[in-house]
Amino acid sequence: MIKLIAFYKQPENKAAFDEHYFNVHVPITEKIPGLRKMKVTKGTGSPMGGEAKYYLICEMYYDSLEDLKAGMKSPEGKASGKDVMSFAGDLVSFMIGEDLE
Amino acid sequence: MIKLIAFYKQPENKAAFDEHYFNVHVPITEKIPGLRKMKVTKGTGSPMGGEAKYYLICEMYYDSLEDLKAGMKSPEGKASGKDVMSFAGDLVSFMIGEDLE
Repeated sequence: MIKLIAFYKQPENKAAFDEHYFNVHVPITEKIPGLRKMKVTKGTGSPMGGEAKYYLICEMYYDSLEDLKAGMKSPEGKASGKDVMSFAGDLVSFMIGEDLE
Repeated sequence: MIKLIAFYKQPENKAAFDEHYFNVHVPITEKIPGLRKMKVTKGTGSPMGGEAKYYLICEMYYDSLEDLKAGMKSPEGKASGKDVMSFAGDLVSFMIGEDLE
């Protein structure tokens, strides 16, 4: 499966980030047509000690690259993109990837 | 479950990277005691166009943080760490994380 991956760096205010992410951003994103599942990883640390490189990573799975692109271009996808830039524009970066095997 | 995540930036020589990664590094890493599964993501692109932020991401799952740390400290874990630094020391970064839900 193909997926859009969002990497979020450590926010200054983690409580405010969580509040917006889980209560506002996830519900908006879940409405994107073609989105099959969302998988969230919480960064808990570094093997060298200290904070994790990323606070949170979200993998958004689609059946195909075409579905992913169509999802991003849909009104729901644009709303999700607008929302993420509003609360985490300085923290987030993206890539497209696929699971091996 | 808890996991060690390795992020690999784009290598200059992708064929040489793949050759070492899949034929040498994975077999060494699979021997680490306590490792439950490895999940590899291949970066295929960026939603803005261009290359993916990471060439490859590998998630290595353990039952607990204690198991993860013990695995890293084991002879097999040290051999895997030594190997990764030998072929991708300038490309790789790590974090510890856990799957939500």
